[in-house]
Amino acid sequence: MEFYISRKMKDMKPSAIREFFKYASVPGVISYSAGSPSPEALPVEAIREITSRIVEEDVEKALLYSVSEGYTPLREELRKYVADNYSSTTDDDDILILSGATQSVDLAAKVLCDEGDTVICEDPSFTGCLNTFRTYGVNLAGVPVSETGIDLNRLERALKEEKRVRLIYTIPNFQNPTGYTMDLPTRRGLYELAVRYNVPILEDDPYGDLRFEGEALPTIKSMDKEGLVLYNRTFSKVLSAGIRVGYFIVPKALMGMLTVGKQSTDVHTGMISQLLCYRFLAGYDLTAHIKAIAPVYKRKCGLMLSELGRLPGDKITFSRPEGGLFVWATLPGITDASEFVMRLVMEKKVATVPGGGFFARQPHVSNCLRMTFAAPSDEQIVTGIGLMGELLKEY
Amino acid sequence: MEFYISRKMKDMKPSAIREFFKYASVPGVISYSAGSPSPEALPVEAIREITSRIVEEDVEKALLYSVSEGYTPLREELRKYVADNYSSTTDDDDILILSGATQSVDLAAKVLCDEGDTVICEDPSFTGCLNTFRTYGVNLAGVPVSETGIDLNRLERALKEEKRVRLIYTIPNFQNPTGYTMDLPTRRGLYELAVRYNVPILEDDPYGDLRFEGEALPTIKSMDKEGLVLYNRTFSKVLSAGIRVGYFIVPKALMGMLTVGKQSTDVHTGMISQLLCYRFLAGYDLTAHIKAIAPVYKRKCGLMLSELGRLPGDKITFSRPEGGLFVWATLPGITDASEFVMRLVMEKKVATVPGGGFFARQPHVSNCLRMTFAAPSDEQIVTGIGLMGELLKEY
Repeated sequence: MEFYISRKMKDMKPSAIREFFKYASVPGVISYSAGSPSPEALPVEAIREITSRIVEEDVEKALLYSVSEGYTPLREELRKYVADNYSSTTDDDDILILSGATQSVDLAAKVLCDEGDTVICEDPSFTGCLNTFRTYGVNLAGVPVSETGIDLNRLERALKEEKRVRLIYTIPNFQNPTGYTMDLPTRRGLYELAVRYNVPILEDDPYGDLRFEGEALPTIKSMDKEGLVLYNRTFSKVLSAGIRVGYFIVPKALMGMLTVGKQSTDVHTGMISQLLCYRFLAGYDLTAHIKAIAPVYKRKCGLMLSELGRLPGDKITFSRPEGGLFVWATLPGITDASEFVMRLVMEKKVATVPGGGFFARQPHVSNCLRMTFAAPSDEQIVTGIGLMGELLKEY
Repeated sequence: MEFYISRKMKDMKPSAIREFFKYASVPGVISYSAGSPSPEALPVEAIREITSRIVEEDVEKALLYSVSEGYTPLREELRKYVADNYSSTTDDDDILILSGATQSVDLAAKVLCDEGDTVICEDPSFTGCLNTFRTYGVNLAGVPVSETGIDLNRLERALKEEKRVRLIYTIPNFQNPTGYTMDLPTRRGLYELAVRYNVPILEDDPYGDLRFEGEALPTIKSMDKEGLVLYNRTFSKVLSAGIRVGYFIVPKALMGMLTVGKQSTDVHTGMISQLLCYRFLAGYDLTAHIKAIAPVYKRKCGLMLSELGRLPGDKITFSRPEGGLFVWATLPGITDASEFVMRLVMEKKVATVPGGGFFARQPHVSNCLRMTFAAPSDEQIVTGIGLMGELLKEY
C-alpha cells in the first residue's frame, strides 16, 4: 500500500553520520566518521569481569523488568559521581537513566515542544540530535558558534525574535562537530540569557570526561539556581557506546513527565547494561579510568593535528580541540565540501562526514568536514591524512 | 522555573501497570501486576554461557556503535525463524531490531500519525502502548473486544466515521489485558476491512510464542498480500524482558522512515542484548525452548483458574486464556474495581491492576482487573487468590 507519512517525518533524511558509518565497515576503509570512543581506551577486562559476575550473581535482575526511572543503585552512584566531579546535582534534581544520550533530546522534545515550536541550537551542531528535534516538527533556530562558544549577541536576538522558544540546546565541551569549547564568560552569559528570557537549557555533555588539555570549566548546570538546566551525560565515550546508557540530570519538576515519556518509548533501559554501569561505578574507579585514558586521546588528537599541519594551509584549516573526539576542518578554496568528501571515501577510502548536514537549516552548503581521531589507529591517522593531502592537490 | 509542557504530554499519567509494578517490589507483596515472564521459564544457563562467550569473543562488537537497523546476523536469523514458524516474512518485508516491543508503537506513531489523527484499538487494550499513542497526541478510537476478538461491525463503523484513521492497533494472541485470542474468521475479516478502507495494521504479538492450549492460528501478517501489516514480536517473554529486544517486521516501503525514527530515539539497540539474542537463535533451539516452557505456563494458568473457580461465581468471573500471561477478571457486583484493587494491595498485599486504565477513553470506570499467573510462584497463586476471596466476602 501507499503509506501516509506524518508531516514531521516526511522530509526526514537518515543522519549523514549514520550513513557514512556504513562505509566504515567496508574492508580497507579508514574511518574518521563515527563518533566512537577509542577502542584501546575502553576498560575491556573490567567489563569482562563485571559481565560474568552479573550473570552469575544478578541474573534475575538482569533478565526481568525494572522501573522506568532506571536501576535505583545506579542512580544513587551517579548522583554521588556527578556531585563530586561536576558539582552538578542538587536536592532539586533527579536522575533518569537513558538508553544512550540521544534519548535526552527525544524526551525533552516530547515533553517541552509542540509541533512548530522553536529550539535554539548552535550552528553547526550534532546532526543526530538536530534530527531528533526535527522528528517532533520543531523549528530549529541556529546561532553561530566559534572557538569561545555560542555567539551571545545572536543568541539574544534569536530569543527576542523567534516565536515560542522552548529550549536552548548546547554542547559546551568539545562540541560536535567543531571540537570548540565554550569559555566561562560565555557559559555565564548563556545561563543569564536563559534566565532573563525564561527558556530552559539542555546542556548536552557527552564528551566532558574526555578532556586532555587545559583546565576543566564549570558546567552550566553548576550555575543553575533557577532549576532550568537539563544536564545530559553518557557512558558511551568512557565505558562503551554499544551498551547504550546515558543519564539525564533534570529538575524534579520535570522528572515525572520525562519518566512517562521514557515508559512510552522503551519502558526502561536494558538491565545488563545498567548493572554493568552500576558495578563499574561502585566497584572500580571511573575517575581514575578517565584520567588514564586522557593520554590516549591526547596522543591521537596531537597526531592528527600534526599530520593536518603538514598539508598546505591555504587548502585546509582545522580546529584544535582540548578534548572529545572531533576535529572540524575547513577547505577555504572550495564552496561545498561534499563532493570532496565523497571522492575521499570512494577514491582514497577515507571516510569523513561532510559539514553541511550539521547546520540548523537544511539543505546547507558548507566547505567544512568533520573528522574523529579517536577510533582510527595511529597508523590509520597518518595514512588517511596523507591520502587526504593527495586528493587536496587536485583542488 | 515553571516549565511549559507540550499539549500532547500535559495530561499524561504514568502507566497504571508501571505504578503498580512498584508495589510488587515491596517485601511481602504477592504481585499479579507486571506482565513479566515466568522466571523459572527463562533459559538462565544458556544466557550465562552466551554472555560469557560474548565478552570473550565479541567484545569489540559489544562495546562499539552499530547500525540503527540492528545487528545484521540477528536480522538474518530472525527472518528465517519468523518465516519457518509464522509464515510471516516475504521478500517485500524488512526487519528492524527494537529496544523492546513498545518501541514499535513509538516508531509507528511517529512515522504514520500527525497530532489529532486517529488510531483504532481494541477496547480494552494494553495501556502501555495506548499511552505511547497518546504521547503523539493521537485520538484513540476503541472498538470492543470479546472472546473471539475485535467486533468487526463496530470496527467498520469506526473506519467509516472516524476522521484520518492512520492505523489499526491489535493484539490478536492472548490479548493484553483480556487474555482473549482473535479467531480465524475475525482475523480474516479484520484484514479485509483494513484493505477495503486502506488503513495499515499494527499486529502486536508479544505473547504468540506462549500458547499452551488449542491450535496456533495464522498471523494477520501471513495473510498480507497488500503489504499493509506491520508485525511486532519480542524476546521479552521467552528469553528476557530485562534485555529489551523486540523486532519489527515491516513493509520495505516503511523501513527507511522507521529506521530514521529509531536513529533519532536511541541510535541502536544495546549490543550485548542483540548479540545474546543472535547467539541464542544461531546456537540454541528457540523452538524447542518455547515448547519446553509451555507446560510451565499451562500449569500456572490452570492453577490460577482453578483457584479462581473456588470463589463465588456471582462475585467474580474471569477469562480462560489459551496462552500468554493474563487473566481478566470481572466483579459483577460492583461498578468500579479500583477501590477493591487498592484495598487488595494495601490490606491483603496482593497486587493486581485495575481495569479502567486499559480503555481508550480516559478516565474510564470498569469493574474489571488484570492478573498475571506467570511471575508468581505456585504457592503465591494459591495464597493470593485465597486472600482475594477473603476480601471479596466484603463486597
